[in-house]
Amino acid sequence: MMDVFIDGVGMTRFGKFPEKSLVDIMYEAASSALADSNSPEVEALFVGSQNPEEFTGEANIAAALADRLELTGIPATRVETASSSGASVIEAAFYAVASGRFKRVLVVAGEKMTHLPTPKVTRILAEVIEAYERNSGASMVALAAMVTQAYAHYCRLSQKKLEQVLCRIAVKNHRNGARNPYAQFQQEIDEERYFNSRMISYPLRLFDCAPITDGAAALVLTSYRTDVKVSGVGHGTDTIAVRHRVHLHHFNAARLAAREAYRMADRSPAEIQFAEIHDAFTCFEIIGAEDLGLLEEGKGWKAVEKGETEVDGRLPINPSGGLKARGHPVGASGLAQAVEIVWQMREKVHPERQVKRNDVAVLHSIGGMSNNNVVVIFEKTGTPHTTGFSFDRKIVDARKHKKDPIRVGEEGILDAYTILTVVPEGFPSPLVLGLVSVPSGHRVLARAVNPVTFKVGERVFLSKEEDTFYFMKASAFEKLMFSLRKSLRKAKLSIRWKLR
Amino acid sequence: MMDVFIDGVGMTRFGKFPEKSLVDIMYEAASSALADSNSPEVEALFVGSQNPEEFTGEANIAAALADRLELTGIPATRVETASSSGASVIEAAFYAVASGRFKRVLVVAGEKMTHLPTPKVTRILAEVIEAYERNSGASMVALAAMVTQAYAHYCRLSQKKLEQVLCRIAVKNHRNGARNPYAQFQQEIDEERYFNSRMISYPLRLFDCAPITDGAAALVLTSYRTDVKVSGVGHGTDTIAVRHRVHLHHFNAARLAAREAYRMADRSPAEIQFAEIHDAFTCFEIIGAEDLGLLEEGKGWKAVEKGETEVDGRLPINPSGGLKARGHPVGASGLAQAVEIVWQMREKVHPERQVKRNDVAVLHSIGGMSNNNVVVIFEKTGTPHTTGFSFDRKIVDARKHKKDPIRVGEEGILDAYTILTVVPEGFPSPLVLGLVSVPSGHRVLARAVNPVTFKVGERVFLSKEEDTFYFMKASAFEKLMFSLRKSLRKAKLSIRWKLR
Repeated sequence: MMDVFIDGVGMTRFGKFPEKSLVDIMYEAASSALADSNSPEVEALFVGSQNPEEFTGEANIAAALADRLELTGIPATRVETASSSGASVIEAAFYAVASGRFKRVLVVAGEKMTHLPTPKVTRILAEVIEAYERNSGASMVALAAMVTQAYAHYCRLSQKKLEQVLCRIAVKNHRNGARNPYAQFQQEIDEERYFNSRMISYPLRLFDCAPITDGAAALVLTSYRTDVKVSGVGHGTDTIAVRHRVHLHHFNAARLAAREAYRMADRSPAEIQFAEIHDAFTCFEIIGAEDLGLLEEGKGWKAVEKGETEVDGRLPINPSGGLKARGHPVGASGLAQAVEIVWQMREKVHPERQVKRNDVAVLHSIGGMSNNNVVVIFEKTGTPHTTGFSFDRKIVDARKHKKDPIRVGEEGILDAYTILTVVPEGFPSPLVLGLVSVPSGHRVLARAVNPVTFKVGERVFLSKEEDTFYFMKASAFEKLMFSLRKSLRKAKLSIRWKLR
Repeated sequence: MMDVFIDGVGMTRFGKFPEKSLVDIMYEAASSALADSNSPEVEALFVGSQNPEEFTGEANIAAALADRLELTGIPATRVETASSSGASVIEAAFYAVASGRFKRVLVVAGEKMTHLPTPKVTRILAEVIEAYERNSGASMVALAAMVTQAYAHYCRLSQKKLEQVLCRIAVKNHRNGARNPYAQFQQEIDEERYFNSRMISYPLRLFDCAPITDGAAALVLTSYRTDVKVSGVGHGTDTIAVRHRVHLHHFNAARLAAREAYRMADRSPAEIQFAEIHDAFTCFEIIGAEDLGLLEEGKGWKAVEKGETEVDGRLPINPSGGLKARGHPVGASGLAQAVEIVWQMREKVHPERQVKRNDVAVLHSIGGMSNNNVVVIFEKTGTPHTTGFSFDRKIVDARKHKKDPIRVGEEGILDAYTILTVVPEGFPSPLVLGLVSVPSGHRVLARAVNPVTFKVGERVFLSKEEDTFYFMKASAFEKLMFSLRKSLRKAKLSIRWKLR
């Protein structure tokens, strides 16, 4: 396998962006990553997203993003493994580069969720749950709550002690988030605030759960040597039904993924210096650290109590604020973890969340109810970090020819048309649609005023009402009138010119 | 790059399977491919599907399929590029093997659509259309109809001639489909039937459009040499909006994909001996063949007229019946094309649809409104085809431990529980859910009869009403009664034994 390195990275701020589309958000992250790179050239695009279709009604999202980025032409592939899509997209792109097929690929992951009402988001997210458990009323948080209970029982933690540990994690991650300008929540919370927060599914409170978020992250993977290497990638699965698993207090899919990643990187857990862990629910941070072998099984909570996982502790976990405070646009989180790790390695973060030892780090991403997990190991190569020329893609200008014209002339050529008899809901049947070229060089999609037949190549008249273009047959009389008007206009113009 | 070969292949019959889930259908195809392979061992699973979430309400489908196949543990990744997902999943898996990371991977693609009303399917499929065009009432068939018109105009075909050519393609593909036991339509059609079929969007009739279908296909990709090699893979994109494209009569994304695939395979179009082309609409078969360089631009219709694309012609196209007659479960079609090509190369098809020259073939798959296309070239290596031992995975037995028990004992241990206050729609709040281990070794997810607090590890009583399990606290009195009943039952049993 070829070695795979990371060139530029970038992400949007995570939060609520009702005015932006998912493609806009991904575009923003991708542009930052390209601008941060040695070259804007990439040979392929890989996109991670959990469910753009249901969250936003947009499909074939990889090609849509390639189009928006003016990268039209290159391969564009979406990768999905539920909430670990942002990490599994690194894996798929990694193989494409490691195979030698591509030298530089752009990896983008994003999700847009906040525009929908919370019950709808919850319903969409619940589609990853095994049917029987889902139909019993088990939501993601309900299953996570039971895993948390099982963990506490395994460690013989009292409920009080458990709550203190969970609170500690929430407080730590909000503190880190407060120092991360890309985080959704940039406010610290204290114990009081935590314990006053609403109980969602006992023993998990609102502050134990990652929020609903919009956001995207991006990076460029390359076979050209850079300062950061992707040294190990692992991916593991488990049975969907939580009740069918042998153990409830840890996640086998994460352990399998970690084993593969350590093997490929030829590293042991003891060499990991900091970690970004999928804390969709606070307890998952401890369970994740134990699954990665970073903390001893059943004793991770003690490390949390001692402050070992704080930014200045022995093993910083989630210096970004984690999913808890940075936010959790489900398909984007895995890639945002990678961006944070690269920023930490390049020492580009707020000094108060900069980890001290930053040579080797691990990313841990959970897909679904922890049955499709991905682990990625990153290390510094010693090569200095460089970025290329200042890079401004002037996208708006380049896309000018693609914009629909605001106004159209009165005339155009009918390039193609169809009489749609089986029409989409809300449209009259038959519906006549045509593609009409206008003198400015634009082509518009327009509706015929009357459902009559046309000839491809014939001259038609165009009009616009609100946002819809209409076209109609140009009769001989109309054609005459039109050319008369045109001559008149020309005459007027020439008179005006002469008067000057 | 490592060379990549195909071991076993398999698919389900395409059609309507209301009683099966998408995972069931994929499982069936995957099992056939594994049974057709030299070894049932695979190291990773790649799944192609366009939109399982909206079609079936099931998400994280790759992990769900790994679970169903008893392959839990291995990486499971879904790949999506709209209707070319079945081909782009070959591409992603190809890189994973070509990189040297895996020696054998299972590739599965499927879709389940027929259980939904047609307008809903149409609406879901329309999500790939650019927003303005979609909001103008343009469905997939409307856009395809206009492309067909533009093609006819480019070739200066009269409407009558165009209709004859389209009819010819439909009749040919139905004839091939009639010889394919895996096809949805196994009936030939004649000119009369074609011309009497309902006009959907002028000039496209019902028989110009691929149907709505359920189905799945699968194959094993491997770095071990077999009789069929994947020698070239290409993938190209185009702008989403049809009106923004320079040409309407061909698809640039297909041309780019073809160029890349020929380059990798070091082959020219003249060397291709037969092809499987994405005829979602009849005219796309000619346009596709022209985009692949198999037929001359603007003259493909002449080859159709001369019968060159029939099974016994110079260049057989869609000997399987194509999307038109085999059916079009959107995310599965690309992989079904690959399966057909391998079957043709191994001469495993009905003699009347067996192509004569079968050494080099090409697959052409369209994603979305032809803006995310994939081309794959296959060739025979000369190595003989072998399959391993007869292979019966006895999945049902192996999965026994995972089945929920039909009846439960009266008692169990509460492994974990949660009090869900923010409940899914239709459930009372608070909802108490618990995971309860029963003496048989099964674990069930149950609802508490009363919303009271429990202790993890405590003994609870279980009951079942319809399909739902319930649990309740075992009071001291109930525990006593229970053990009394148990003793009584034992006593009865021993008496019965004594009586024998």
